[in-house]
Amino acid sequence: MNSDFTFKRKDLNRRTASPLPSSISPIGVRTSRSNDGRLSQEPNVETDALDWGGDVLERRVAYDNFTTIDWIHDFAKERSRLRKLKKKKGTRGKWLQVSDATQAWIIVFAVGLAAGLIAALIDISSEWLSDLREGYCTTGFYLNKKFCCWEIDDGVSCDYWHNWTGKFWVSYIIYIVTGIGFAVTSGILVKLYAPYAIWDGLAEVKTILGGFIIKGFLGVWTLVIKSLGLILAVASGLSLGKEGPLVHITCCCGNVFLRLFPKYSQNEAKKREILSAASAGGISVAFGAPIGGVLFSLEEVSYYFSDSTMWRSFFCAMVASVVLQMVNPFRTGKLVLFQASYNRDWHGFEMIFFVFLGILGGLLGALIIRLNLRITRIRNTSFIRHYPITEIVIVAAITALISYLNIFMRVDSTELISNLFRECEGNDYYTLCNHNTFASNVGLLIVAAILKIVLTVLTFGIQLPAGIFMPSMVVGACCGRALGILVEAWQRYYPTFWLFASCPPEGSCITPGTYALVGATAALGGVTRMTVSLVVIMFELTGALTYVLPIMIAVMLSKWVGDAFGKGGIYDGVIKLQGYPFLDNKETYNYDFIGSQVMTRVDDLVVIPANSTTLDSLDEIMQFTDYKGFPVVSSLRDMMLIGFISRNELRFAIDQAKRADGISGSSPCYFGTALPVLEATAYVDLRPWMDMTPITASYKLSMETVMELFRKMGIRYLLFVQNGKLHGLLTKKDILRHLAVVHRIQRMDGENRFHSLNLRLNEFDS
Amino acid sequence: MNSDFTFKRKDLNRRTASPLPSSISPIGVRTSRSNDGRLSQEPNVETDALDWGGDVLERRVAYDNFTTIDWIHDFAKERSRLRKLKKKKGTRGKWLQVSDATQAWIIVFAVGLAAGLIAALIDISSEWLSDLREGYCTTGFYLNKKFCCWEIDDGVSCDYWHNWTGKFWVSYIIYIVTGIGFAVTSGILVKLYAPYAIWDGLAEVKTILGGFIIKGFLGVWTLVIKSLGLILAVASGLSLGKEGPLVHITCCCGNVFLRLFPKYSQNEAKKREILSAASAGGISVAFGAPIGGVLFSLEEVSYYFSDSTMWRSFFCAMVASVVLQMVNPFRTGKLVLFQASYNRDWHGFEMIFFVFLGILGGLLGALIIRLNLRITRIRNTSFIRHYPITEIVIVAAITALISYLNIFMRVDSTELISNLFRECEGNDYYTLCNHNTFASNVGLLIVAAILKIVLTVLTFGIQLPAGIFMPSMVVGACCGRALGILVEAWQRYYPTFWLFASCPPEGSCITPGTYALVGATAALGGVTRMTVSLVVIMFELTGALTYVLPIMIAVMLSKWVGDAFGKGGIYDGVIKLQGYPFLDNKETYNYDFIGSQVMTRVDDLVVIPANSTTLDSLDEIMQFTDYKGFPVVSSLRDMMLIGFISRNELRFAIDQAKRADGISGSSPCYFGTALPVLEATAYVDLRPWMDMTPITASYKLSMETVMELFRKMGIRYLLFVQNGKLHGLLTKKDILRHLAVVHRIQRMDGENRFHSLNLRLNEFDS
Repeated sequence: MNSDFTFKRKDLNRRTASPLPSSISPIGVRTSRSNDGRLSQEPNVETDALDWGGDVLERRVAYDNFTTIDWIHDFAKERSRLRKLKKKKGTRGKWLQVSDATQAWIIVFAVGLAAGLIAALIDISSEWLSDLREGYCTTGFYLNKKFCCWEIDDGVSCDYWHNWTGKFWVSYIIYIVTGIGFAVTSGILVKLYAPYAIWDGLAEVKTILGGFIIKGFLGVWTLVIKSLGLILAVASGLSLGKEGPLVHITCCCGNVFLRLFPKYSQNEAKKREILSAASAGGISVAFGAPIGGVLFSLEEVSYYFSDSTMWRSFFCAMVASVVLQMVNPFRTGKLVLFQASYNRDWHGFEMIFFVFLGILGGLLGALIIRLNLRITRIRNTSFIRHYPITEIVIVAAITALISYLNIFMRVDSTELISNLFRECEGNDYYTLCNHNTFASNVGLLIVAAILKIVLTVLTFGIQLPAGIFMPSMVVGACCGRALGILVEAWQRYYPTFWLFASCPPEGSCITPGTYALVGATAALGGVTRMTVSLVVIMFELTGALTYVLPIMIAVMLSKWVGDAFGKGGIYDGVIKLQGYPFLDNKETYNYDFIGSQVMTRVDDLVVIPANSTTLDSLDEIMQFTDYKGFPVVSSLRDMMLIGFISRNELRFAIDQAKRADGISGSSPCYFGTALPVLEATAYVDLRPWMDMTPITASYKLSMETVMELFRKMGIRYLLFVQNGKLHGLLTKKDILRHLAVVHRIQRMDGENRFHSLNLRLNEFDS
Repeated sequence: MNSDFTFKRKDLNRRTASPLPSSISPIGVRTSRSNDGRLSQEPNVETDALDWGGDVLERRVAYDNFTTIDWIHDFAKERSRLRKLKKKKGTRGKWLQVSDATQAWIIVFAVGLAAGLIAALIDISSEWLSDLREGYCTTGFYLNKKFCCWEIDDGVSCDYWHNWTGKFWVSYIIYIVTGIGFAVTSGILVKLYAPYAIWDGLAEVKTILGGFIIKGFLGVWTLVIKSLGLILAVASGLSLGKEGPLVHITCCCGNVFLRLFPKYSQNEAKKREILSAASAGGISVAFGAPIGGVLFSLEEVSYYFSDSTMWRSFFCAMVASVVLQMVNPFRTGKLVLFQASYNRDWHGFEMIFFVFLGILGGLLGALIIRLNLRITRIRNTSFIRHYPITEIVIVAAITALISYLNIFMRVDSTELISNLFRECEGNDYYTLCNHNTFASNVGLLIVAAILKIVLTVLTFGIQLPAGIFMPSMVVGACCGRALGILVEAWQRYYPTFWLFASCPPEGSCITPGTYALVGATAALGGVTRMTVSLVVIMFELTGALTYVLPIMIAVMLSKWVGDAFGKGGIYDGVIKLQGYPFLDNKETYNYDFIGSQVMTRVDDLVVIPANSTTLDSLDEIMQFTDYKGFPVVSSLRDMMLIGFISRNELRFAIDQAKRADGISGSSPCYFGTALPVLEATAYVDLRPWMDMTPITASYKLSMETVMELFRKMGIRYLLFVQNGKLHGLLTKKDILRHLAVVHRIQRMDGENRFHSLNLRLNEFDS
């Protein structure tokens, strides 16, 4: 949402080549020649492809930054590696195989451990910093208010804790100044050391898992700065949550740990298996919901999610939960502050209110998404984008100014939610359970909800680590609790009303806490459009089957209502707004196109003719075009498809060939068919650098099936042929551009928006 | 495992054609002809494919029994239907769209409701029948022992319940006779009314979800008879469980309910979405684990599992759970009899024993799978296969004879497990908690485990509805409890031993019930090789994070150990043994082949040449071959691929054409290129019946990628081309045969087995 984030191609010229296996040389020496100018050692395709087998798979030069990965190739590379490993016999072979199999488990265990510890650290530190805005602990400066007053009755004020001042105005000013101070510190840290640490990073993690390369996004610096920045940002009292960023942080852990094992660090597809598991660990500690975390990773974040990935995700999530429970940051034995448990069942008539909350959640979610995206667009185009720190100061100041005056906004979000969820028996948080003040409570809650919406749409998008889960839940919980209090009051004043016939004659009937729970769920569902994972997270929070039905209905309604105002949650919105090259494999494509209507026609393509290509002509192609890959055809006349070579590897091959003896600019290039120049004695063998079996399709193939090929097979490009002749090319970029057209996203802000997306897409590779 | 189940092709001649849309006629009348014999209205592929668009998708004749479905086609058909629906405007259009969207929810709700009710019925009835073997209730014949003695203290004997006799031998004989009687009644019901109701049906459900057609397997009769037969089988005391069959039963419900909606009944791919959801409902009620059910469906049963299927599965599982909880068949408020809750945490040193149980579970699982498959093979080839009822009598008699003498085998499996899982505080089931009898208890438990293994491998495979989940769990729980009792005794007699240093000085330290839980989990894991779903099921049974770590480690170890003795659980074994055409999309293919090495070469194929085919020549091809489909090429000389036509539809088109005016045997057939006979005025247009854009690949493509195409895209056949020329064909059948070779399954019983599989595979279509 700021210019830092629009992918630049500055890195494209930096080559990051992996060492070339010594067995492959792109230089061939012609040994004999048959009469028709074809090489006598011309490959017998059937056996030759096998001979190349393993080595061909290692040819790939490392991916450039901001390019898409080739899933098929990476998976094949891994299988080839496994085959080689299997062939190793003896004790050493056995040992290598066992250690290979345990690597994944070591990484996910380490990620789980780190996730648990980091989550605990963030919880404790942010609480301490937050309390420091009010005062300090006389028995130990490092203690937060809760630990300082440990074993002291909550009702009585605690002597060990010393407030900075007793005067309202001084407190108010300290609150504002510290809030701005923390936020700015966080912003400066991020700006100086890890620009990728802003926001929650979920949209980017999703894009990366979808097969895109963003170097440094999951690096050590991002990990450290995001953790520190998040503590400060949370403590600053801004309207943001730590749940989303925690997923980014655990993914960083995963990415850092997997560097120890070449199996993962050198295979982008395998790397993403670990990242999927790590994101499950992140949600597991954020909500204390290990199964919810796995389902979140499966449903929301991951692109391919195999059974073994699921098992590892589960392991990671469980380890993270257990570690967090052992550290016990809240000293309650609970995994999160807002774990809920209810003694009472719900009554049939309450379903009306739960349905209302579900619909309200959908509306609120749609509203938050719309407003946030609109503000982000304004921010991206106005002068403010050049002054991120000033923006932070302004937002933090507004937040602190407003929040201090409303008790529900002043306290920490997690603490607020935990109290809104609670039953009234024996407790009375912020006089929420006081029957006499119910009208003012409802008023305060509704004001808090409205202000929270305003602050949230302002905050989610400034240059800080910030999640949107918690603020959405706060909005929903405030609305829900307000409704719950109203219904409770109604029932108390008119107990004989027909609606309340099923209530017991004695004791309370309505539990307002459950309304807050359902409301928070619905609002979060409206913003993120999560389904199963959200219900499971809430199921794990309450731990009982009792409230599953209301929660499910609220989630379902909020999704339906939200989708009526625009498909997709806020992350899909961010992905589209930022123009990330993410091809959603969950969306259904339902348009009546065929391949030839969408493909780039052969007339508009730069192809390499195998019969007349020399090193110089390749150099020329590289110089005058910036396409990311070139189809290779037999000749420009008959256009029979031979293969596909990516720019990346062609560049590498040319550079290597130039350094070789006997090779000059006029040396012919060999692609597996006839050699162009009959007189040459040395040629450049480009076969190892070429995809000799690209996935092809009839150009009459329906776009539905084409989309399936891209999504399910993970291909980067598709070549359209008819009778062997090349007719066109379709890349992931083309698909995304086509989708942008058919989705008519210009609906949102006219032609402008589409053009800007179009331009951005042009920056991505094929 | 019996001959009834080997797929016969008797049904293949019966045509079950869906009504042909009137807009499609396979008869064309030549309007003009250009000089080169080509039609002047020869299709412009780009626009023409669009014109055919929707209609082409409806051409498909209904699938034959025992054939594989074409996922790509079915999904495309659904999308085309949705496109048409979207175009409908006005109130009626809106209404149709809304009702279309709610259909799935109505079905899964109904399935959940039915699943809950049927599960409750089976629980209550089988318990009543089982108790009837001992005596009857004087206050009401229809009451089982528990309900008869309701509100009467468990310790005291209940006067309302009247045992048939007090004498041991008479009771023993009644026990044996009723056992045989129930089992035989169940066997006869199944044999007469629903042969598909035998076993648990999970292997077949998995095969069906993988895209295979078995008509009647999920019909009303199977539903009714399997439910009744299961009640009788469970009551007979045979070593079998109701969990697996419940999944089959709920899938039957799904299949029956979806018949009301053409959207599902006429689309095999969409049908499978409902069946996936239904199987989640089945496990949900079987174990009281709704989330576990969803994950089971995802991990074990389903082939394609989209997000919307997941959401519906979850809904179905939740409704089923809630309904079952409302019916409350056990009158405990719990969903299953063996829900467990523990007060004590486990100690670090206990991990040694849990690891041991995990390894033991893997070994037991491998043993049960091996023995069971061996016995099934013997059964399939010996004379006994002609006398299924006699076999039931023998097995039931042996079971009853043995079981009555061991208290742990006499009681109902679920009741036994529930007591083995329990803590000792305040209870003493079967004197399990009596410290003085610990040696005899351990002995009895181990004997029970061994006998249970023997009975289970004998039972799973006879012609009755029977699941293997519960018996496996019993074996594991007996072993686990035995170990737990031993460890407890050890700790009691040597409390100062260094291992027990972490035990509290006072009170008990070891909870033998948890050992039973871990043991049962490990054994079930060993038999089924479930991972995440099994842990989640156990997690939902205990409802606490406390025992998740031991459970996870046990599951992981039992899977690793089991896999060392042979990959895949018992269902994979059954699928292989029965030769079901199931292409596992979770297994990794890791061999170094390319397409041309596996494909059927073009010389061995029957192809249709577009330039010289008349109605008569097609008839001839149909008569003299039994291939399930034919590639269409331009001519036998140049072999350029035009398309693919399946036997099914070719037959239908020919029959229809023959009835038309002006068409004779010598009428040419039009495939989209030149017409063979220039003089004819009428021709048969076969384009609507042909797949004009079959998925093709280079014959040099690695088999790894070919497998991915089959698994991920759900194609039925792949055509190999080079420069547009047809080189070969690969069908799902070929893939399965190839896999059988490379897996060297002959290892198990020599060349013989492979040949028999090979022969069976030949019976399946392409």
